[in-house]
Amino acid sequence: MNQHLEAINKTMELFERYSHAVRIMQYDMETICPKEGMEAQGEDIAFFSNEAFKLLKDETFMAEVEAAYKEMDDSWNEFDRAFIRDMYRGQLKSSKITPEMNLEFARTTQKAFADWSRAKEAADFGMFQESLAKVAEKDCKVAALRSEIPELKRDTPYDYMLDDYEEGMTAADLDRIFGECKERLVPLLQRIQASDKKIRTDFLSRKVTEAQQKELAYKVLNYMNYDLNRGAMTTSEHPFTSEMAVDDVRITTHYYDDAFASSLYSVVHEGGHGLFELNAPRENWEHHLANKTMGQHESVSRFYENMIGRSEAFCDVVYDMVAECMPQVVEGVSKKEFYEAINTVTPSLIRTESDEFTYTFHIIIRYEIEKEIMNNGLDVAEVPALWKKKYEEYLGVTPDNDKVGCLQDMHWTEGFGYFPTYALGNMYNAMYYNRMKKEVDIDAAIKSGSLADINAWMCEHVWKKADRQTPKEWITEITGRELTSKDFLDYIEEKYTKIYNL
Amino acid sequence: MNQHLEAINKTMELFERYSHAVRIMQYDMETICPKEGMEAQGEDIAFFSNEAFKLLKDETFMAEVEAAYKEMDDSWNEFDRAFIRDMYRGQLKSSKITPEMNLEFARTTQKAFADWSRAKEAADFGMFQESLAKVAEKDCKVAALRSEIPELKRDTPYDYMLDDYEEGMTAADLDRIFGECKERLVPLLQRIQASDKKIRTDFLSRKVTEAQQKELAYKVLNYMNYDLNRGAMTTSEHPFTSEMAVDDVRITTHYYDDAFASSLYSVVHEGGHGLFELNAPRENWEHHLANKTMGQHESVSRFYENMIGRSEAFCDVVYDMVAECMPQVVEGVSKKEFYEAINTVTPSLIRTESDEFTYTFHIIIRYEIEKEIMNNGLDVAEVPALWKKKYEEYLGVTPDNDKVGCLQDMHWTEGFGYFPTYALGNMYNAMYYNRMKKEVDIDAAIKSGSLADINAWMCEHVWKKADRQTPKEWITEITGRELTSKDFLDYIEEKYTKIYNL
Repeated sequence: MNQHLEAINKTMELFERYSHAVRIMQYDMETICPKEGMEAQGEDIAFFSNEAFKLLKDETFMAEVEAAYKEMDDSWNEFDRAFIRDMYRGQLKSSKITPEMNLEFARTTQKAFADWSRAKEAADFGMFQESLAKVAEKDCKVAALRSEIPELKRDTPYDYMLDDYEEGMTAADLDRIFGECKERLVPLLQRIQASDKKIRTDFLSRKVTEAQQKELAYKVLNYMNYDLNRGAMTTSEHPFTSEMAVDDVRITTHYYDDAFASSLYSVVHEGGHGLFELNAPRENWEHHLANKTMGQHESVSRFYENMIGRSEAFCDVVYDMVAECMPQVVEGVSKKEFYEAINTVTPSLIRTESDEFTYTFHIIIRYEIEKEIMNNGLDVAEVPALWKKKYEEYLGVTPDNDKVGCLQDMHWTEGFGYFPTYALGNMYNAMYYNRMKKEVDIDAAIKSGSLADINAWMCEHVWKKADRQTPKEWITEITGRELTSKDFLDYIEEKYTKIYNL
Repeated sequence: MNQHLEAINKTMELFERYSHAVRIMQYDMETICPKEGMEAQGEDIAFFSNEAFKLLKDETFMAEVEAAYKEMDDSWNEFDRAFIRDMYRGQLKSSKITPEMNLEFARTTQKAFADWSRAKEAADFGMFQESLAKVAEKDCKVAALRSEIPELKRDTPYDYMLDDYEEGMTAADLDRIFGECKERLVPLLQRIQASDKKIRTDFLSRKVTEAQQKELAYKVLNYMNYDLNRGAMTTSEHPFTSEMAVDDVRITTHYYDDAFASSLYSVVHEGGHGLFELNAPRENWEHHLANKTMGQHESVSRFYENMIGRSEAFCDVVYDMVAECMPQVVEGVSKKEFYEAINTVTPSLIRTESDEFTYTFHIIIRYEIEKEIMNNGLDVAEVPALWKKKYEEYLGVTPDNDKVGCLQDMHWTEGFGYFPTYALGNMYNAMYYNRMKKEVDIDAAIKSGSLADINAWMCEHVWKKADRQTPKEWITEITGRELTSKDFLDYIEEKYTKIYNL
């Protein structure tokens, strides 16, 4: 083995141990740690994170990475190449950021999180405004520093942020894609709202116990072929997936006693994220390669949640499970009614509770605002008013206060560029869904008793190379085409035209 | 501050961070980690444990501790003094143990655990015998090495092991105490068995759901004044308590659908351990002082479980909670019947499932066997036969196989000397219970809606100084007397004479 790579791998083993401890402690924080214990645990998490960070910022280590990057050639296996390429790119990105700046940035985001929590509770954007301005300043500063490095050069400040979540993505790409979405989705929404189709949704809020929901959740995970010898499920306020180790990928959900579908679709969504990790090549771990982009990840989770999970075939399967675990929910409800209720379109204020159709608008609004801040210097004081205006324009709803408006998501406490990946996930998965349809009888697979056939296709085509390819290489190899919104928009149009008899 | 102490405290802060990470990862392993993830997580736990261990074995650090110990005088606060005394004693104990031996010992106990697990599953002592012999060899070796250090000198090899769990305790003390127990408990058990009192226990195995048991568990914890902002409860195969941090003390329980009392009393027992930690002086943490002995700890947990938890007043309180959470259990059952069922005496094979009365025999049997191995060279091959003989002699029951016989507990995979602490806990708590009775109206306190008054008394008299005193100093200060079995035996005799109308 190359001597530089050998030295790098040795450090990475240590890095992995520290990271593992951090992930376990973080997971513990979000699932079980008592309130009063969080501060001390947070300090220890910060300590171990920093120990891990220091390993990667060590000058000798960085020199080894640079040397390995320069020596790398076709004789290397593709895992090592992807890993070194990724490490080197990461180093380049942070090369102009001094430890002092790094500390300052960490303080900014920590304070932003604390301010946001309080502001959200008080439904008062004013309490978050100063912090948001600092976060914007930080992101602009990072963009400016990266622009000094020729290999990283992009067209607009916001593009540097996008690149962290979806390598190669630009505001120009997104303007085009979201423009196409608006062009087709806005009139379609108007037609849906004008339709006289009545969908009953009363039974979605029938009372259920936690035990009933838990039983359903495990049934669904089992049906998804989620291997619980290599994973676990528990509860947290916001559902998430956590990849602890090669044989330990966990998901969480939450249980509301008047909204069984919330937990159900959290399980399907997080289960998708988890399957992606559990079915990645084991070599990724051996080569310290963990390079899936958020767009790739969201494409998979939302594929399971929507394409599969909200399909008529899946709803039929789940209906039977619901009838077993919580019979009161489907008493007097037909399978057709169940499917339609799951897919009812209701413009609303909260992104995480929105339906498959209107979800994209929530993303577009956030995208347009954050781009405006970074690329056109929008004063963050204008955010609440702009938010309100756009919700009225795109969805016809008006937030009463900032809590259900621009303070609903925590993402901006970290920085900008994350939100678009949710929508990109929808574009990617609609594209590979169209290929899958030609090769797999999807409805038959869903009705076969487990998602084994679906998973097998995903494993072969979608999951295998995700960590070794840029999103562009990846989607082009799977579908033979570059990113487009067409498949997604066709899919949405076909599905909802049928449901609403348009 | 003393310069040595300053240096020591700095290292201890780092030690605490590593230990915290280890505790969280260990807790995670026992509560949520999936099967296939355990091996990798076990390796990382071993890594961080060793990093922590290395900090304490560092030569400069050890020299600082020795210097601090020698400089220490009455001008130091008592927390620092207890801490340094404890550290120095720990160093002395391991001073003759080389790193090679230490590694060898760790391998021995790890292999012993693996062998024991397999042997227990197969109910075949033969599969554990060789490992048990090695564990015995290890403990004899440690005893021999410590005997070379004048300050640590004890009378018999087994005494060195006892000292690790209960400082100052000797086989001579235990022979006396357990001799007294046998003298009074053996004839009492015969009288109980000859009594014609019929206690109905059918309802103890009525079916209950996990949700019902969980509801009861939280009701009980709340009633115990267990602050869940500073603690948490979840499930594990074997219930345990874990002190993560000064404001984070967690307990676990398990739920069986045909034995609600098993979870109930696990909660009360572990809740007792937890209250002890949660109500220790905050200064203990600031001074890195965590020096409660197992006997002290078990005295508290068993005080809550038995003295309080199996009292008639508590059973009445719990009866009402059970009637609310799982009404089917007490349908047609009177409060008197409930109390008597909880306290029925049934000689049985399994320690952890035994009643308050027969529990002591389980401990005596283990004590007599482990003492025989260490002090009289009993061949471990004789253990199963001796075990059987003693169970027949003391309890009149015969294990069919080793799984329900000498393989039931995991303690011997680590070494000897632990078991007696359970019984010592009973002696201590009966002694302070007699003082408490004079100062607190215990029945009234139990019926007052919470255990606040009981806890307050425990805090003032039992918990406050436990980490700063040897067990002997501690029990003498609380009760004005030295350790005796009399209070415990009187308590048992009075309680069971009444229940069985003797």
